[in-house]
Order: sequence, then C-alpha cells, then structure tokens
Amino acid sequence: MAGSVFGKHFQVSTWGESHGKGIGVVVDGCPAGLSLSEQIVQKYLDRRKPGQTRYSTPRKEADEVEILSGIFEGKTTGTPISMVVYNTSQRSKDYSEIAEYFRPGHADYTFDQKYGFRDYRGGGRSSGRETISRVAAGAVASEVLKSLGVTVAAYSKEIGCIKIDETKAELGNIMKSPLYMPDLEASRKAELLLEQKMKEQDSVGGVIECIIKGLPAGVGDPVFEKLDANLAKAVMSIGAVKGFEIGDGFAAAKSFGSENNDAFVMKENGSVAKMTNHAGGILGGISDGSDIVLRAAVKPTPSIARTQKTVNRQGQDIEINIRGRHDPIIVPRAVVVVESMAALTVLDMLFVSMTSNLDAVKRFFYR
Amino acid sequence: MAGSVFGKHFQVSTWGESHGKGIGVVVDGCPAGLSLSEQIVQKYLDRRKPGQTRYSTPRKEADEVEILSGIFEGKTTGTPISMVVYNTSQRSKDYSEIAEYFRPGHADYTFDQKYGFRDYRGGGRSSGRETISRVAAGAVASEVLKSLGVTVAAYSKEIGCIKIDETKAELGNIMKSPLYMPDLEASRKAELLLEQKMKEQDSVGGVIECIIKGLPAGVGDPVFEKLDANLAKAVMSIGAVKGFEIGDGFAAAKSFGSENNDAFVMKENGSVAKMTNHAGGILGGISDGSDIVLRAAVKPTPSIARTQKTVNRQGQDIEINIRGRHDPIIVPRAVVVVESMAALTVLDMLFVSMTSNLDAVKRFFYR
Amino acid sequence: MAGSVFGKHFQVSTWGESHGKGIGVVVDGCPAGLSLSEQIVQKYLDRRKPGQTRYSTPRKEADEVEILSGIFEGKTTGTPISMVVYNTSQRSKDYSEIAEYFRPGHADYTFDQKYGFRDYRGGGRSSGRETISRVAAGAVASEVLKSLGVTVAAYSKEIGCIKIDETKAELGNIMKSPLYMPDLEASRKAELLLEQKMKEQDSVGGVIECIIKGLPAGVGDPVFEKLDANLAKAVMSIGAVKGFEIGDGFAAAKSFGSENNDAFVMKENGSVAKMTNHAGGILGGISDGSDIVLRAAVKPTPSIARTQKTVNRQGQDIEINIRGRHDPIIVPRAVVVVESMAALTVLDMLFVSMTSNLDAVKRFFYR
Amino acid sequence: MAGSVFGKHFQVSTWGESHGKGIGVVVDGCPAGLSLSEQIVQKYLDRRKPGQTRYSTPRKEADEVEILSGIFEGKTTGTPISMVVYNTSQRSKDYSEIAEYFRPGHADYTFDQKYGFRDYRGGGRSSGRETISRVAAGAVASEVLKSLGVTVAAYSKEIGCIKIDETKAELGNIMKSPLYMPDLEASRKAELLLEQKMKEQDSVGGVIECIIKGLPAGVGDPVFEKLDANLAKAVMSIGAVKGFEIGDGFAAAKSFGSENNDAFVMKENGSVAKMTNHAGGILGGISDGSDIVLRAAVKPTPSIARTQKTVNRQGQDIEINIRGRHDPIIVPRAVVVVESMAALTVLDMLFVSMTSNLDAVKRFFYR
Repeated sequence: MAGSVFGKHFQVSTWGESHGKGIGVVVDGCPAGLSLSEQIVQKYLDRRKPGQTRYSTPRKEADEVEILSGIFEGKTTGTPISMVVYNTSQRSKDYSEIAEYFRPGHADYTFDQKYGFRDYRGGGRSSGRETISRVAAGAVASEVLKSLGVTVAAYSKEIGCIKIDETKAELGNIMKSPLYMPDLEASRKAELLLEQKMKEQDSVGGVIECIIKGLPAGVGDPVFEKLDANLAKAVMSIGAVKGFEIGDGFAAAKSFGSENNDAFVMKENGSVAKMTNHAGGILGGISDGSDIVLRAAVKPTPSIARTQKTVNRQGQDIEINIRGRHDPIIVPRAVVVVESMAALTVLDMLFVSMTSNLDAVKRFFYR
Repeated sequence: MAGSVFGKHFQVSTWGESHGKGIGVVVDGCPAGLSLSEQIVQKYLDRRKPGQTRYSTPRKEADEVEILSGIFEGKTTGTPISMVVYNTSQRSKDYSEIAEYFRPGHADYTFDQKYGFRDYRGGGRSSGRETISRVAAGAVASEVLKSLGVTVAAYSKEIGCIKIDETKAELGNIMKSPLYMPDLEASRKAELLLEQKMKEQDSVGGVIECIIKGLPAGVGDPVFEKLDANLAKAVMSIGAVKGFEIGDGFAAAKSFGSENNDAFVMKENGSVAKMTNHAGGILGGISDGSDIVLRAAVKPTPSIARTQKTVNRQGQDIEINIRGRHDPIIVPRAVVVVESMAALTVLDMLFVSMTSNLDAVKRFFYR
Repeated sequence: MAGSVFGKHFQVSTWGESHGKGIGVVVDGCPAGLSLSEQIVQKYLDRRKPGQTRYSTPRKEADEVEILSGIFEGKTTGTPISMVVYNTSQRSKDYSEIAEYFRPGHADYTFDQKYGFRDYRGGGRSSGRETISRVAAGAVASEVLKSLGVTVAAYSKEIGCIKIDETKAELGNIMKSPLYMPDLEASRKAELLLEQKMKEQDSVGGVIECIIKGLPAGVGDPVFEKLDANLAKAVMSIGAVKGFEIGDGFAAAKSFGSENNDAFVMKENGSVAKMTNHAGGILGGISDGSDIVLRAAVKPTPSIARTQKTVNRQGQDIEINIRGRHDPIIVPRAVVVVESMAALTVLDMLFVSMTSNLDAVKRFFYR
Repeated sequence: MAGSVFGKHFQVSTWGESHGKGIGVVVDGCPAGLSLSEQIVQKYLDRRKPGQTRYSTPRKEADEVEILSGIFEGKTTGTPISMVVYNTSQRSKDYSEIAEYFRPGHADYTFDQKYGFRDYRGGGRSSGRETISRVAAGAVASEVLKSLGVTVAAYSKEIGCIKIDETKAELGNIMKSPLYMPDLEASRKAELLLEQKMKEQDSVGGVIECIIKGLPAGVGDPVFEKLDANLAKAVMSIGAVKGFEIGDGFAAAKSFGSENNDAFVMKENGSVAKMTNHAGGILGGISDGSDIVLRAAVKPTPSIARTQKTVNRQGQDIEINIRGRHDPIIVPRAVVVVESMAALTVLDMLFVSMTSNLDAVKRFFYR
C-alpha cells in the first residue's frame, strides 16, 4: 500500500529526500550466490550522476553507494541488501521562497493537498534524486538477469523533434553520445536544439526506448499481470514519464490486422520465430521469446528559468522565476532509470513464471 | 502472484474461459451499504455485449449476470460479491484445427510455451470474453465512486485513421454512435472505413480516451504507486492495448517546458485551479483535482479471414484461414472495459489515500 | 486487503454465505498439468460434510462441488479454477428473532459494529459453511503437494479433557473414529463425554494436531515470513481456533535449553537428521527436513441450547434460547479444515522457496 | 514474497546482520503529521538493549538509532522513514569454528540448506539483533496508535515454571522488575531460578502476555484476515516463539460452551460490553471493543555453554561447546518485541477497517 515499495519476489523498498541525509534502498528477495560489490552497483549509478555533460544540472554529487547488508564474502546471502547514497551537496540554502508557492509541473501542490505540508527543500521526496534508489536496485536485478542470459538496454530515441535514424543507429554509439543516442548525427542535431532552448530558458522532452533480449517465452501472466502491463506501471512510475508503448504502440492503432499480425515461422534450428515484431515480444501478456521493445515519453523538465504564473499558499496569483540551474532535459539521465525499472519488472515476473507448469516444478524439486 | 487478481483494498478475482461453463468474478473489499442489483451491473455489461451492431461478432450471448453472494436486502454487506455470466453459445464445434496451430497475434503460442498446453476452444482464458469479469467488477466500483461524486467516462477517440474533431465532440453523442464516438460525423466516416476493411477481410484498431471527473486532489502515492502508473497497468492489462498516455502523453515529449507546464491560478471561489491540463490531472503521481485524462491504443483484431502464414505444433510452416466471423474492430466494445479498469484503479487508490494524513485519520476515528 | 483472499503464488479467493445461493472459491496460480476433477475435490469435502455422525449438525446438505473453470481434458490449465457448492437447505425460515440480538461467542455484534448491519441468516458470512471454500481449495493444494511428495494429515488430539495416548495412536484409526481420533479407546471416552454434554445442552472443544511429511529443508523465509508464522496465521484464521503451537509449543516455555535443543546427527545414508523434534520441523522459520508438527486449540461451539444472557439491538439486557440443533463439537469437522489451511500455506511457501538460491534458479532456466 | 517486509498499509522493510555494518528498517505508509524524533524511538529500543541486567548478554552496544529520512521539522512527512542502528561491537573475532558446524536450536542448518551458505558471524541475519528493526518500526506504530487512543503493553507472565499471581500483578511494577514481571514476588523467584540455571550452564523460556486497550470494535476482517490470525503471524514471526494464544487460548479447548461464551450486557452509559473476556477481545476475527489479550510461548535460549551433540559441514558427528556468554533467557528482552509486532499489526488493520462501511467513507470525503 505504501508507495515506495516495488515488486513481489524481488522486492525493493526505497527512501530518502533530495536534501535529507541520503537516498537509499533495501532489496529483499535477491537469490543467494550473486557476486555483488559497491563497484558493480556504482557503474550503473554513474550513468545517472549529475554534472557529467553541459546538459545536466551542475549539482556536485559523487553519488557513491555504500552497501550496508546482505553481502558476505563478495556474494549475496539471500537476505536484504541495504544500499545508501549519502547526500553531500545539500547546502543549507534558503528555501523559504520555494516553500511559499507551487511550482508549475511539479508535485508541490499535490503533496500539500495529500499530506498537509511538504519537505520543500529541493523537491523533497519528489525530487529526481529518488531515482538513485531505482538504479541501485535495478543494478542488482540486472546482474541477476545477466547471470540468466537476459540483458536490458535503453537509449534516447527522440530528443524534442529530433529522432534517431534506425538505419544509422548502433548500440555501440550510445556511450559516445552525451545524450545516449545510438545515432551520432541525430545526437549532434539534438545538442544544437538543446543549446538553443537553454538560451531561451526553456526545456526539452523526448522518448526513451528499451530492449530486453534473451528473455525466454512464457514470462508474464494472463489477465491482470501481463508482462506489458507490469512494464507499463514500472516505467510510468518514473517521474516525468507521460506515455508508454509496447511494440508498435500507438502506431498499431492506425494499422490494420493484416499489417500488424506477426506471422510465425520455423527457424532452421527447429525453433519457432516471428517474421516481424510489431507485438514487441509479448502476446497475450506473455513473452514470446523475441525481443521485448518498449518506449517511454518523457516530458520537458518543469523547472525553467523563464517567468511563470502560479499561486502561493496564501491563495494569491503570482509570477515566479525559479532560480538555480536545472537539467534542461531529463531524458539522457533517465535512460538508465528506464532500464532499471524494466530489469526489476522482468526479473520479478521471471521468478513468478517458475511455477506455471507442474512438470517444471517437479523437475526442480526432484532433481 | 496469480494473474487474475486485481487491486488491494477493492480486490477482484476473475475466472472463466470462452467456451467453459461461464465467466465470473469475486469482488472482495466493497464497503457495506451500497445499493446493488443484477439490473445495475447488467447495464454496464450490455455495453460490451456482442451482436449489437454489424461491427461486432454475431456470437449470440445474452451475457446475463447472476449475483451469488454479498448482497442482503438490496445492499452490499461488505463481504465478497460473487458474480457469474454463464456461457450459452459454447457450441461443441470442432476446434481440432485451431488446436494444431498458433494464430498470429493471439496468445496460442505463448500459452503453450508457458503452460505446456492450452484450452484452445475459442481462445480459452485469453478470449475477449474474459473482460466480462472486468466490466462486472468495474460496475460495482463505478457505483461506489458515483456515491462519492466521482464519474468515469470513456469513448472512441480514433478508429484507424479517423479521429474525432474535439470541437464537434459531445459526450451526449456517445450512445448514439454504434462506435461510441462523441463526434457523429467522425463516427460515420469510421463506419465507412470499417465497411471497406470488412470487405477486404481485414481489421481495424483505434484509440480510446477516458475522463475521470470529481476525483479530489491527493489520490495516488509518490514513487512506485503513482496514480498514473496504476492506471497504466490497469489499462495495459486489457488484451489488445499496446500503448497508454496520461494528459498530453507522447505529444509532451515533443513539447517544451514553457508550453507543457500548467500554470496554477486562483478561482473566484478561492480554490486553486490550473489554466491548462497538459498533465492530465496528475502531478508527481498524485491527482491535482482537475480531470484525469488517459488514452489507450488498441491494436486491430488479430482474427482476420485472410490467408495468413504461421506454424503448427508439429513445427511446420503452414498457411491458415481463420474461419467464423470475428469482430472487425474491438475498440467500441472495449470502451466500457477501459472505463471499468479506470474505475477499479481509482477506487482502490482513493481508499488508500484515506490514511495519508494523521489529522484526517484522527477525525475519522474521533468523529 | 480484502479478508477473503489467501496466498500469494497459489491464491485463493472465497465467497458465500450460509443461507445465500452457495459457497465458492476461485483458485488462481495452480500450476498447469495437475489431474483434477470434481470427484477428487469431493473426497475432501465429504470429510467436513454435516450430518454424518450424531456429533454434528443434522442440516441436510449434499455439499456437492461443481468446477466451473480452469480444467481442460482432466487437467488444470494454469488459469483460475472456480468451484462452487450450491446451498440446498437454506429454508426460508424466520430469522427475525436472531436478527434482533447478538449471540454470545458469535460474530453478530462485531459484524454489526464493522458493517452497520449483517446478513443474519444462519450466520451469513461468518458461518462455518465458509470453510467449504477452504477445503475445496485445500484439496487442490494437497493434490499438488502429493505430486511433489509432500503429505498433510490432521486428527483430533484432544476432545475436552480426553487426550489420545500417543502409544496407542495409529493414523490408520482416524477414519474409523467418528471423532477422527487416532486412539480408538480415547475416541470412545470422548463420545461418552459428548453424550453427557449434549444432554446438558452444552458443547465441547478440543485440540487438532497436524503433521506435514516430506517437505524438503529450506522452505520458509527468515524474519516476517517464517513458515511457522504463516502456518499460525492460516490456522488461526479458522473460526473457533484460539491457540496455535509448533513443535512443543507452550511446553517449550517451561523447558530448559538443554532439554529443548534438538541435537543434529548423521544418518547412515549420509544425510543430516535430528535426534528429537521439539522444534516441530522448523528452525529460524525455515523447514529442517523433519516432520512439521502443529496444533490448534478449538473452542467449544458457541451455539448452545441453554438459556444465555445477552443484549438486543435495542440496547436491552435479555435472555435467549438459541433454537435448532447445532454441532455439539466442531473439532472433528474442523480436522480437514486445518489440513487444508496447512496445505495452502506450505504449497505457497514451497513455491516461494524456489528462488532462494541463484544456482538452483540457473539450473531451472538452463536445463 | 521477500521475508523481511511486513504490513500492507503501514509497511516495514528490515535489513541487517548481527556483525554487519548495522541493522535498519524503512517504514513506509506512516501518515504525515506525527511528531517523531530519535529520542522517541530510542526509548523503545532501550527496553531491548543488551547488558542492562545480569540476565542478558553483556555485549556492549549502545544501539543508538539514527533517522535518515521521512521527518521534516519534527514531523513525519508521509514518505518513508529510514532508521539505522550501526553495530559498534562486531569485533573481528574468529568465527571459523562456528562456521563449520550447525548449532542445535539455531538456524545454521536451515540457512545452509536454503541458501547454500550463510553469514555465520554471530548468527548473521537470524540473530536476535534483527529485532532492533521491529522495535524501531513498532515505536512509530505505537506513537500513531497512541494519538488514536490505542495502547499496547506487554510483560513477562511466566519464567520457566514461575507464573505471576494475577492478584498481585500491577502494570506499574513491570519496569521495577529486571524480568519485566508485574508481580515482584514472582519476579524474585524467577531470578533465583535463573541464577541456578546459569550455574548449570542452561537456559530458561517463558510466556509473554500483551494487552491492547482502546481499540474500537470493528477492526479485523472476516475469513483469512482475522485480527487474531494476523496477530498470530506477527508474534510467531519473532524468533524463539513457539506458541500463540488469544484470550483463553488452549484452556478454551478444555472448557465448555456454557463457560466459554462471554455474555453481552448493557453498560450504564448505554454501550454494549461483555461480562467476561474469554474471547480475548475478538469475535469472528473482529475486535469487539474489549481488551485484546494475547500470549506468546518463548523457548529457552538455544545457545548454552554445556557440551552438545551436533554434526559439522563435513558430515561428521561431533560434540561442541559454544563459547562466549549468551542471554540465559530471551523473555524479558522480547517483551518490547511482542509489543512492537502487536502494534504494527493492529495499526495496519485499523487503517484497513476505514473502508468497511460506505457511510463512513462518504463522511470522510464529504466532511
């Protein structure tokens, strides 16, 4: 019921505020025997760290993770893994102004309505720093998945109106682009767009695509616990995500059955494949063995320097200028967050799928 | 863990196959004291009943609901409400053909992979008839919501490439259109498209929009249990839905911060409102008091009469012609299903929101 | 959240009232491929059927189960199994009297306080008939367990002050005793006690013991999800159960460490065993491979014919004589209910245990 | 699914090992607006701190709690409260011996069977230090309950064979007894028993009783989510607890209906009461407004200095002498743990009960 807990088997409980003592997560339900260390988790966290390009907030944070429990002699023990990133840059600056009004596009107003008041320092619990917990937990899930042959990879597909050209996209390019775009030409165009919008004190959105490879067929449950439904919830739970697609998504709505159906075909090795993948790897909510393809629409950063209209807590119409420098775009830093949420979801459902078939259960216990 | 259970407070457990004895649902967690009868639930079910227009399957089913428990003297007792719709048209026709191959766009292959075999009669558990349970449960949720001043209404926004003209749309038109479109001119154009595609033995998809009015601010939880995340899961769990948007959705990704932010403004009655609603009524995962607006992309019906390529269980490439008449479009019948899933979600989260604030909890117990 | 749903993996949703149309259950999460039929489930239900001995209510109910979904060609499909037992003996007798007051030891008063009113016909939802759903679901769980080599067996250990003599108890006797006692001499003594108390218009309680054999070591989770904690909840959720023990239970509190510790010892076949089983087969919440032994204390039937003091809904002190004939003891009919709850719990936790160890998970997916 | 998460509304996620960096808990779902500080939580923790009497382990631990999130200006914000107690006394002593064998009565063997290996330093995750998390979370729950007029109080009722005399027991005495017994004469006798058993290198168990006052009628759900069933799970999840009773518990099994039924009676103020409380404040799983009375049977500490038989990881029968000084009895330090688990359970179910009645829900939203 509580909002900061995710997953059933592989269960994650997150905590922390932007300007509190730190941000953390407890991962419960990770199988025993996985090699894990702070170095491994740190690699994932570094991909969302601020201040790495001129397109992200210059807030100075090392975002170094410390593991407090659940590891013994370099391996997970099967008991809860507690991880924390202490905040180091929470200067005791004056937040009295921001405390007094509701920033457009932010959760200030809704937090006040829900709880009666809010920790207003830097966004408090609704700050983007909350995603540190998701990435740390997602790192553990990704490592488990890797050991089972499943990989999850995301990238920026669109930045504002700039879209990658599929024919020029290469996964190897992602880390070369400051915007995590697999098409470097598109990446350069997107940088120009960002420069312009930064000058205009404005912000930009985009679309993130995520591909899951190696997932066996049979993962996901019919009716309410469809794999795509769970992925949708996981990805839509990331702040700033306003839309979700699996496979062809909204384009499927404009397509016809004769175009949209993926024909099955036998592969030379005797396995079943599909000639196309409009479905995005999921049929009836269950993985079909082809790549899972999903997309998230990310809104432009709500914190912009331009003058904006809003109201204050005293019920007056006012104009505000949000100070400080903010990310002109969230998309690149959100790439690893989408990946993390996808990994958490897929792993949880993979575990659940182990009991679908009585013969498989028997084999497990009578091995 | 099991796939056919939905919700936490207002918990729904569904069962049944297309050609089994019936389809049903158990609703647990409905508050005591709601007026409820088979007549009330039937009204919702009639909106998804087959055979009402030439654009839906002519399968003859009265789809009459029977309530087996949980009602006493016309009111819910707070204990489980069991509802069943017996199947009447499950002719013992020969399904041996369909049993042997995997229909493109259907869950035949993934069910076989997951469970080892499947009830192949008419789609079994992955049949669209499964949504009867959703609508029956959604009817109860909608009635509870109505008593609390919250309404949920959905309609067809796009059929294939035909889109409603917002300036001509009127909610009053929805029931006048065989396609549940609020713009009757668009509805007529869409009918022409459907006629043509039916001749071509093809099928059509579309977009459903749903609007929730009257929901107080403060519903939905931060982080993983955001209201929009839960709505996404609920709606994406409907078979054939491939995309989900809240507010401006994917358009927000192409928008700039200065355009996408909704300015707050004081209303004459002293309450806070927003000048626009790009956010779709949710900020930081929490309702802001304005209308909740969501959309679902529905793929074209996978069952088409045209010759299609696929493989059979023996691992041979074959060509098939699916016999029988199927819905050339699912969208209109899915409208009430989207509404139902939205109602189930919103009610559950409304209940959860009752404990956000200690003062409100105290008022409840010390009244 | 809703009270009538049990389990996580193997999830059970029950419904129905004593004098409504029927009593039923939906079982979701049963693996595909289990042989199941109405005949199999009926055998379990027959053990709790009323009217079989002079020590149970003579209410005439065949309690015949009908399976409505989830079975195809004699096997479970992995989708929800809906089962119903229609009530046949719910005579429209006059319940106006019982509606007006609160029976001591029953849930009349608490239902009224919780819901504002109640379905007062024969106890409504709080009737013992509710356990039909538990037994039907437990039958399915027991069959799955059996296929995995795990058996669950319960019997009456004490009836009032009459206790079985362990040296004379044989499991083979259980079905020969009308009270399901494994010591036939104790059974005869208990029958005499019951005859006497029936004459005195009084009722008797007792203790049920349940033994689970064949459960592998490693089932149950540390901290909150201990196997014994879950068994305690499951068994204490049965109406009339007032106490629960695992292994030596309350006797352990009077024992010393040197007596209560079970020494480990090597068996000839090279496996680890314990020399004694004071722990009841669970150490640190996790099964240790020896028999699981638990006990439930059952209170005497609250419905007695003697004059009792109580109050009515008008707030007056009154004296009542509950009419009709009731079970003078619940224990024998509750034996199969305890067994069912134990089976549901153990199966659920057995499934959960499949992901404790990464090597085992790898073996499952890379088989 | 994961074993270290408790509760639905008020959800608690615990972590940490005896000799790791620390022990902690994340509390999610606490309403906003509760006054909370480290001082408040510390008071509860001090009651289970080691080394306070000669009857507990002399391990030197300050057990000082630090709150890392969820509090702003002295009040809970409604977001997760992260609390940690760093271990200060985890000397890097040689654990290689203990690593090699399975201590009787401990979870060494079952952890190895479940996970393949274990963090053997001081019991790792199965150490009694795990209960620090329970007490810290329970402190928050108790404070919320207090603000709603509900109190939870526990004490030692039996130490070995020494039982308190109800006529001499006074709640005011509890804190005066080193064993938390409300009857000081019994306390002195129990001290003598402990002295003797300590000399004999043995350990002692006992019974803890807990009383919940001020809980309104109507809390708890029928069927599986009965209040007593949830209390049983919560209390049985505490390591070393082997039995649970509500009200008369096992004594009720030997009682007759005419003795065990609690007659209802009108009080002068016009409210309904019971003349006796054999039921322990719960009828049909729902609180009836009288005191909730429960008991837990605690086994003697398994760590004793005497020579014991066991086996080692190499599969050899061996004799061991566990070194170091251990608690000769767990009961007194477990008193506040039982209280904590009861508070967590009651608060969660109190929240759930808010939606039982539609009229009450309407009043909440239309206030």
